[in-house]
Amino acid sequence: MNYSIIRKILGIVIKLLGVLMILPVLCGVIYQEKECLIYLGFSVAYIALGSFLSGQKVENEVFYVKEGFAIVGLSWIVLSILGALPFVVTGDIPGVTDAIFETASGFTTTGSSILSDVEALSHTSLFWRSFTHWIGGMGVIVFILAVMPMAGGYNMSLMRAESPGYSVGKLVPRMKDTAKILYMIYFGLTVAEMIMLFLARMPLFDAMCISFGSAGTGGFGVRNDSCASYTPLMQDIITVFILMFGVNFNAYYYILHRDKKSLKKMSEVKGYFLIVAFCIITITINLHDRMESFFSALHHAAFQVASIITTTGFATQDFDKWPQYSRCLLVLIMFIGACAGSTGGGMKVSRIMIMVKTVKRELLKYIHPRSVTNVTMDGAAIDKSTLHSVSVYLSTYMLIFSLSVLVLAGAENMDLESTFTAVACTFNNIGPGLGKVGPTCNFGQLSAFGKYVLIFDMLAGRLELYPMLILISPAIWKRKG
Amino acid sequence: MNYSIIRKILGIVIKLLGVLMILPVLCGVIYQEKECLIYLGFSVAYIALGSFLSGQKVENEVFYVKEGFAIVGLSWIVLSILGALPFVVTGDIPGVTDAIFETASGFTTTGSSILSDVEALSHTSLFWRSFTHWIGGMGVIVFILAVMPMAGGYNMSLMRAESPGYSVGKLVPRMKDTAKILYMIYFGLTVAEMIMLFLARMPLFDAMCISFGSAGTGGFGVRNDSCASYTPLMQDIITVFILMFGVNFNAYYYILHRDKKSLKKMSEVKGYFLIVAFCIITITINLHDRMESFFSALHHAAFQVASIITTTGFATQDFDKWPQYSRCLLVLIMFIGACAGSTGGGMKVSRIMIMVKTVKRELLKYIHPRSVTNVTMDGAAIDKSTLHSVSVYLSTYMLIFSLSVLVLAGAENMDLESTFTAVACTFNNIGPGLGKVGPTCNFGQLSAFGKYVLIFDMLAGRLELYPMLILISPAIWKRKG
Repeated sequence: MNYSIIRKILGIVIKLLGVLMILPVLCGVIYQEKECLIYLGFSVAYIALGSFLSGQKVENEVFYVKEGFAIVGLSWIVLSILGALPFVVTGDIPGVTDAIFETASGFTTTGSSILSDVEALSHTSLFWRSFTHWIGGMGVIVFILAVMPMAGGYNMSLMRAESPGYSVGKLVPRMKDTAKILYMIYFGLTVAEMIMLFLARMPLFDAMCISFGSAGTGGFGVRNDSCASYTPLMQDIITVFILMFGVNFNAYYYILHRDKKSLKKMSEVKGYFLIVAFCIITITINLHDRMESFFSALHHAAFQVASIITTTGFATQDFDKWPQYSRCLLVLIMFIGACAGSTGGGMKVSRIMIMVKTVKRELLKYIHPRSVTNVTMDGAAIDKSTLHSVSVYLSTYMLIFSLSVLVLAGAENMDLESTFTAVACTFNNIGPGLGKVGPTCNFGQLSAFGKYVLIFDMLAGRLELYPMLILISPAIWKRKG
Repeated sequence: MNYSIIRKILGIVIKLLGVLMILPVLCGVIYQEKECLIYLGFSVAYIALGSFLSGQKVENEVFYVKEGFAIVGLSWIVLSILGALPFVVTGDIPGVTDAIFETASGFTTTGSSILSDVEALSHTSLFWRSFTHWIGGMGVIVFILAVMPMAGGYNMSLMRAESPGYSVGKLVPRMKDTAKILYMIYFGLTVAEMIMLFLARMPLFDAMCISFGSAGTGGFGVRNDSCASYTPLMQDIITVFILMFGVNFNAYYYILHRDKKSLKKMSEVKGYFLIVAFCIITITINLHDRMESFFSALHHAAFQVASIITTTGFATQDFDKWPQYSRCLLVLIMFIGACAGSTGGGMKVSRIMIMVKTVKRELLKYIHPRSVTNVTMDGAAIDKSTLHSVSVYLSTYMLIFSLSVLVLAGAENMDLESTFTAVACTFNNIGPGLGKVGPTCNFGQLSAFGKYVLIFDMLAGRLELYPMLILISPAIWKRKG
């Protein structure tokens, strides 16, 4: 392991955290809250610590996939811990484990909360809490790649380790430029949502925090009822924007460049909207006799489907009380998740599509043994190594999921539905589950051990499993190589 | 499609069904029940119908994998329907859907029941119900291969389609002899269990039916409380035998031939017993403060773990009321299932082991990119096509499972835990689930549609997915070839 390069990049990450913490400080100044001084203190301290670490001499700039994975994994753990300290010191979230849970939930864009009364927090902390979603949505390392001058060819393996999806395409030849383009789209869409919500008469503070939560597909709200007390118009704006943040960002690049050909080839995006449409229609039918009107059913179904499939986790209703078909479908789409290359979590629509196509080809092979065809996506055959990595991903996913459910069941003795959905909604970075961790409940009731299990799941889910698994493999800390 | 060969083999299957139905007739004669006449009538009718169908001229003896799959799938559907008719006519299970559910559950060795009062049935029907487990455990087609003279090279593809596990090894050069050896082991172990139970003072009728249920890893009992009212000694005998029926039968062949070398190589069997030991120990710890003694906890834990992992489904206690860790672990091992080449269902231990090893290799590849190793089982590298088929199996399994849960949730509006475990315990051929389909409940409450969904799952699970999927693919009924 090349420890000096790990130290350097961790230093940059900590410095960046300090810089980003200036925003909640500004928010605190506007609201004249004394909490802003505490955030300022941490901001200065992190910039100093980060500069010290990143200023140390690096013996060797070369590094490999394992260093890339280790850096990404460690960065996110460090972010979750250091980002949590202001919550503890301000007293907004006094417990250390709780604060780390909330911050990891923020950065990983999960949105699961241990708080029962969100509105009791200072504006400064509320702002920081929602802002972590925005930072985590696109990724910290991607941000560093976009804005900092860095040497060499290791950028790609860092970006691969942090980006959602089975393959990261370069939009333009230089990695740095690709990262910049993605961040500009991200920034533009976020601002667009803020303006739309503000025009719909949402208070500016709410509009900003909700937009951060939508953009990162996070799900932290600033009210105790999540999004239930906003007007239907505001809720519809949020629905449209979270659906947009669940689309592969390359699509927006193609739209900006009027590249219709590339856009049409994006079969994942078509698949994503087909699944969304199917879910909205069937849930609307399932709900319509409990709502005041058909449109009300459609409105809530669309909001909740968009919120869950993009792994955001906002709620306009207590969907835990919905009929079983709707509850069950919502749990299923927790696993599907959004498109690769979006800010959403879950397994990703493209992986599910590849799974389905592989199964279909297997059946055809039995029926017409001589006509063996390739599995294709976006009009081209998928190479074997991608097929292999998708299937290994699926196995890894199932194993981590099953073990987490078992360990959590042992630690908490909650009913099976609550245990199962607690893992499903943290591992897929959604937020609320069903039963004891449903939309009207929170994760504060869990033991410290149970919280750390779920923190691991949130990080593993956000970082596409391997960075976190590599950190806990004894093999990586043993040999040089 | 070669329809004439399909007709011929279906004819043989129906004839065999008629012959096998003579046993419940004999049972009815002994108990002097008038139901035996009805079974006799069906027996004669099936022998006549089967002889007529199999006596027709076959134009072409050649057939391929798809015909093999279609034959196996159709045979099992025909068995489930024709095997159900005596239940309806005797009035023991008057509803047609219920009778088909019960019979499919029998042949697929699931053991899920729609009956609330088993003891009300005639001995003739009870015997037939348990005997279907024994027939289905080893497979009907395998039986035909073992005892009937049949032409040509298509036997292997038939046996492949019906046998559990990712690969069927030939023990001896001729397929027919392999099938014979397996059936002899199966017969021998079943008789051994009957004798042991009888010596432990179980009534002979119970001993026979329970042995049929253990051998096929089915789970139908002859008492309303499943196995709860038998003595601890009888329960322990059952525990040992069901664990033995969950072992790959090749092991017994090696033991009989004192082939220690081959026996030692069977890593799946080691894995199976390790998982069993882990589950028994942790569940014993989890249970011990609710039971009268440590040994009582161990006794019930061992029985229930053996019963669930081998996918049998007998119960000595209402494990739905056990603490959450135990319930959760039992649900997880529902999916693992027994060894390939045993009579058990589920995904099979070998597939899980291959999954875990593939994930481990992937991690090592990231850590030491230059030392890429093969995935090995039983001391030899696994070829790529096996790895591929295991991963496709897993994807297919997950897709059928998810869709079944969704459809059942829409049809029944049961709580999520009941819906989830209803599918888990039929698809994995276990028997009872949790909640509304727990050990003290039954499947009679479901709608006819819900029952047919679960019948499909039982058949798909027993036949390793593809035969049933191929039957519902439009492509197979379209073209010739």
